[in-house]
Amino acid sequence: MLNYRKDLEKMPSYDGVEKNYRVKVNANESTLNLPPLVEERVINRLANISFNRYPNEEYALLIEQIAKNFSVSKSQILLGGGSSEIIEKVFHSFGGKGKKIVYPQPSFSMYKIYARAAEAQAFPFDLDEKFDLDVDKFIKKVHEVNADLAVVCNPNNPTGNALTVAQIEEIAKNIDCAFLLDEAYVEFYGHSAFNLVKKYPNLIVARTFSKAYGMAAARVGYMIAQEDVTRMINKTFMPYHMNVLSLAAADIVYQMRDEFITRIQSTVAERQRIFEKLKNLREIEVFPSQTNFILIRYKKAAALQEYLDNLDIGVRYFSAGAAGLKNCLRISMGMQIENDEVFSAIKNFVEGK
Amino acid sequence: MLNYRKDLEKMPSYDGVEKNYRVKVNANESTLNLPPLVEERVINRLANISFNRYPNEEYALLIEQIAKNFSVSKSQILLGGGSSEIIEKVFHSFGGKGKKIVYPQPSFSMYKIYARAAEAQAFPFDLDEKFDLDVDKFIKKVHEVNADLAVVCNPNNPTGNALTVAQIEEIAKNIDCAFLLDEAYVEFYGHSAFNLVKKYPNLIVARTFSKAYGMAAARVGYMIAQEDVTRMINKTFMPYHMNVLSLAAADIVYQMRDEFITRIQSTVAERQRIFEKLKNLREIEVFPSQTNFILIRYKKAAALQEYLDNLDIGVRYFSAGAAGLKNCLRISMGMQIENDEVFSAIKNFVEGK
Repeated sequence: MLNYRKDLEKMPSYDGVEKNYRVKVNANESTLNLPPLVEERVINRLANISFNRYPNEEYALLIEQIAKNFSVSKSQILLGGGSSEIIEKVFHSFGGKGKKIVYPQPSFSMYKIYARAAEAQAFPFDLDEKFDLDVDKFIKKVHEVNADLAVVCNPNNPTGNALTVAQIEEIAKNIDCAFLLDEAYVEFYGHSAFNLVKKYPNLIVARTFSKAYGMAAARVGYMIAQEDVTRMINKTFMPYHMNVLSLAAADIVYQMRDEFITRIQSTVAERQRIFEKLKNLREIEVFPSQTNFILIRYKKAAALQEYLDNLDIGVRYFSAGAAGLKNCLRISMGMQIENDEVFSAIKNFVEGK
Repeated sequence: MLNYRKDLEKMPSYDGVEKNYRVKVNANESTLNLPPLVEERVINRLANISFNRYPNEEYALLIEQIAKNFSVSKSQILLGGGSSEIIEKVFHSFGGKGKKIVYPQPSFSMYKIYARAAEAQAFPFDLDEKFDLDVDKFIKKVHEVNADLAVVCNPNNPTGNALTVAQIEEIAKNIDCAFLLDEAYVEFYGHSAFNLVKKYPNLIVARTFSKAYGMAAARVGYMIAQEDVTRMINKTFMPYHMNVLSLAAADIVYQMRDEFITRIQSTVAERQRIFEKLKNLREIEVFPSQTNFILIRYKKAAALQEYLDNLDIGVRYFSAGAAGLKNCLRISMGMQIENDEVFSAIKNFVEGK
């Protein structure tokens, strides 16, 4: 055995290939590919790339656009491979021996892994029985453990609920450590806290092109923070960590982001429609959502998931191992016809038809 | 000041935008974009991507091709964002408090940074005055410092010279720690040591699509090692770290890799032609190269670089700070017409015309 890094053996690995479901509503992806006009321009742009050259101004060009949109300086933005890489690097930046990270539970399952990869001590903070985050208790916990980084996912994945911007500000104001706000689903909610970055030097807002902008394949995310924070976190990114194809594609998508407004609205409308329908099913507990997915709890969740799987419908099932999520299923919003099919299948199963 | 990771402040940052030289021979890139037939197929493939879906089987498909070509099992290959990310992750895997990494000097300038990012102790091993690596002394040093990871770049960047496969085997055989062989330029040399992986469980070979395959923009590299080594190093890669656009493009490029043979041959021929011409210049010391670039030493290197810069020719200048490379310039091979122009400019400067 070679002399690997301490505790590396205990880290999990990820390399499975997922089933290609006919109705794939398990990963909170956009169910539609890019709008045709956007896709055409993306492909035209890719056809003009110098594949042979290392990335150069593409990173700066995308940052310039994002900074302009948020009315912040270019030095307040960093790009990463999805908000995943942003979160990973923020955890790393505040990690290391003796460092402490507080994050909600249940929430994005990777927080636990990023904390471990960062060699930090993880302090999951339990949401209440309705999956709400008690702001006062959260602040108290951050102080109690003397955290170096506090994390909130808003709206929260996989529960779908959201804090108000005022609640986010309450947290930012009352903690001194770094505060990472993961806004991966915020476009479906409509209330970003990015404006608070000006006021709170501990706030870091992470955003992504993977959900509302339908670019999960390209792996592009970004963060907004004050300049001295981005300067430090930038040190954890190695040169050329972003590729030109993804940057160029994201650049076009961002230029044309108005093209996504109607589909975001339609996803929100579908979420409300399906929420109302699910509420009427006996034995199913439905959680209100501000995202592009809905979480349900149902005592036969495992059997329901298997039933849906046999119909070639993929939903996300949380095993008993996922704290607080026993018997929960997460269903991403697809097209209307897909959502209807998923709902009918659930209804049939629940009603024993 | 927030509580950043220990020593993060001391890490450098990378975010500069490079000058777009008319003749750009400073980064060891392929001077030509993809062969037109390859590029057409790459663009066709990109036009068929589901941008909205997270990466899935694309990673496995590229691995399958590479494994088949090298006659190794799929579990012996890992992909990364350029060989850069492969090297970064290998350093991380054998890094941490008290871990020791030996690498040659002068060599790829990032080794020092990767060692620091991995929080390992760096032990640069000095090449001799001709930039040759003394194999016995290298082995001795690895034992002396009780290294956890030994690194060799073959052929070596930025010096251009190479060890034989027998010499690589000599090292692999006589050290017990992990042995990373960086073969970024091996296609221009023709003698890969990947076959030794079967025999030596400590050997890790890193390769890239960025140089011979003209894909620096896409950031795709790979490593070959024994299965229990890839299993461990894979733990340092987070899910979805590779994007679909780059994977799909690399998949086509790899399928069509025979299309690159003539241009690799032509680069090698150009390197020999320019080497002979440079040899005839008084006051210029030229180092024999097995790569797509040539290193020269010249007492007025800084002034020559400035002169070339004014002609909009970009070459890589090493300041006195780069150990062993004082007064050195590295010149990548471009097209024949570019190489002629670069040579004439150097000649004019040296001869004071």
